[in-house]
Amino acid sequence: MNTIQIKAYGAADKDADLKELNINRRDVTAKDIEIEILYCGVCHSDLHTARNDWGGTLYPAVPGHEIIGRITKVGSEVTKLKVGDLAGVGCLVGSCSTCDSCKNDLEQYCSNGWVGTYNGPDKHLGGHTFGGYSEKVVVEEHFVLKVPANLNLAAVAPLLCAGITTWSPLKHWKVGKGSKVAVIGLGGLGHMAIKLAKGLGADVTLFSRSPDKEKDALELGADSVVISTDEEHMIAVGGKFDLIIDTVPYIHDINPYISTLNTNGTLVLVGYLGPLDPFLNTVPLILGRKSVAGSLIGGIAETQEMLDFCGKHNIVSEIEIIKMQDINEAYERMLKSDVRYRFVIDMASLKA
Amino acid sequence: MNTIQIKAYGAADKDADLKELNINRRDVTAKDIEIEILYCGVCHSDLHTARNDWGGTLYPAVPGHEIIGRITKVGSEVTKLKVGDLAGVGCLVGSCSTCDSCKNDLEQYCSNGWVGTYNGPDKHLGGHTFGGYSEKVVVEEHFVLKVPANLNLAAVAPLLCAGITTWSPLKHWKVGKGSKVAVIGLGGLGHMAIKLAKGLGADVTLFSRSPDKEKDALELGADSVVISTDEEHMIAVGGKFDLIIDTVPYIHDINPYISTLNTNGTLVLVGYLGPLDPFLNTVPLILGRKSVAGSLIGGIAETQEMLDFCGKHNIVSEIEIIKMQDINEAYERMLKSDVRYRFVIDMASLKA
Ligand SMILES: [Zn+2]
Ligand SMILES: [Zn+2]
Ligand SMILES: [Zn+2]
Ligand SMILES: [Zn+2]
Repeated sequence: MNTIQIKAYGAADKDADLKELNINRRDVTAKDIEIEILYCGVCHSDLHTARNDWGGTLYPAVPGHEIIGRITKVGSEVTKLKVGDLAGVGCLVGSCSTCDSCKNDLEQYCSNGWVGTYNGPDKHLGGHTFGGYSEKVVVEEHFVLKVPANLNLAAVAPLLCAGITTWSPLKHWKVGKGSKVAVIGLGGLGHMAIKLAKGLGADVTLFSRSPDKEKDALELGADSVVISTDEEHMIAVGGKFDLIIDTVPYIHDINPYISTLNTNGTLVLVGYLGPLDPFLNTVPLILGRKSVAGSLIGGIAETQEMLDFCGKHNIVSEIEIIKMQDINEAYERMLKSDVRYRFVIDMASLKA
Repeated sequence: MNTIQIKAYGAADKDADLKELNINRRDVTAKDIEIEILYCGVCHSDLHTARNDWGGTLYPAVPGHEIIGRITKVGSEVTKLKVGDLAGVGCLVGSCSTCDSCKNDLEQYCSNGWVGTYNGPDKHLGGHTFGGYSEKVVVEEHFVLKVPANLNLAAVAPLLCAGITTWSPLKHWKVGKGSKVAVIGLGGLGHMAIKLAKGLGADVTLFSRSPDKEKDALELGADSVVISTDEEHMIAVGGKFDLIIDTVPYIHDINPYISTLNTNGTLVLVGYLGPLDPFLNTVPLILGRKSVAGSLIGGIAETQEMLDFCGKHNIVSEIEIIKMQDINEAYERMLKSDVRYRFVIDMASLKA
């Protein structure tokens, strides 16, 4: 298979800073699209993968799964998009296409294992996939998204992970006009959850531990902010919410939030992978038919639906643009939550 | 308010055996129905309330919320049933009728507090309500169920708690033809879950720790039995079930069962009130959009729907009939799971 060599930014091992390196991309096959990358959002998963925080990282690790670019080449059978079009690539670049999940547009739950945009098995070139911290990417047509032209392109990038991760549960649990939605945590995911839930017509509350998040949350569209350490305030919203989107990425006690769910309400975890410590109490679940659920990114059709919705409602992420060369510093700032609310790399900087 | 004195069986305090005693029932008000009790099922809640295992028991405690009888008197405004009709009373004898839950036929989630058939606040006579271990009961029309005449009446009694507790989640999570349902635990609740899920057309699996439950489960209608301590067998059913009804009443590890849920699957707890120890792991919830939920008995309309369904499909509980005087011994046997699968008291024995 023909390949081209391109510049990228990646980590050589778990303790290394990210640096410029060269990687290969395949030439387009009949169903492939080649995209010149304009912007790439910076997700917490990028950092955790680069540093092997979850184990299983293959090196060199080239992160990046919030990719916006322009199409430079298409395979002979590609019909969805053409050269010169804007295009987006999110967290997924492959799946089996034959299992029940894939057939139901839930590629993210593919029972044969989906292929991540980075650190996944590269069935074309062997080895592992490389993400969007690079000049170009080549992706099967099915996994390439159309990008609304009316939006700030850099600010669209985070929709492809932070956006879809919160959009998918909002849609799955049927949020719409009159729904009462709460969001736990105001970061990359949380700020998108507020914007998208508001866009869908919900009444939106932010749960935060820091009173200093209140002003931002209201500006982003939240109807109210509840300081989760304020017991009286928590009691005042008891039984209120139909859906709580919990974006907190570290271990935390979800029991106090369960009390704020209405009968039939669901708390959906999108940020934290691990044991629920302290113990989840089943009493309020049973006494109010409440649920605790999880949700992972979203399928391709659903991602397109979200991008179209954002185009129509003029919704984008709040971002801070950085150069590729600033990525290591950006990771340090992310660890301190020192970003409002997503870093996006201007990939022109990699060419410079 | 006029009252009548009747015989009942109850506990004088938490350490006392149940004994015969006298209680008062109100004369029927305009919307009340008086029922002569023919049979009363024996639920684990009866035992836990009598012994104050959960705290909050008011004495004397007269348990019993699986009541079948014949109507002996009706108030002037009663239209649903008439003297001489069969009637059933389950776990609920009152609710606010004005909250969202009540308006949506979910009296069991009444946000102003529903009134239990026993140990609830008696708004008519003051004090607390007395259950079905008694000659008669007087209940508001709304909370009285019609009983299909074609079924074994004694075996219908347990439908009013064990039946509806498993029916409600089966219906809420839309079990029907082609659904794959698993039931954890084969006791009063579990054996009804198998029968009802099978009646609804599902493929039904019993999870059990004891291989000696297999024969019974298959006879009750289960399609298969998985021994939950057999790791290979558990792996073989990985990702299989749309709904798991967990009837286990004591603390247990639900994590191994989560692995057997399909994408979008739900494990619903109906038996265990307390902390989920060991910790519930969120990873499989997120990676498969799975849920852990709880469910409490069922609403009145739903209970009627279940009774009608059981009449049509000839479904009743498996029972062992006892005399009222045998109740203390029955409790001891229940604690050893020595009953297939529900004790029902022949209330004629109380008159004797
Ligand atoms: Zn991400
Ligand atoms: Zn698949
Ligand atoms: Zn019961
Ligand atoms: Zn109510």
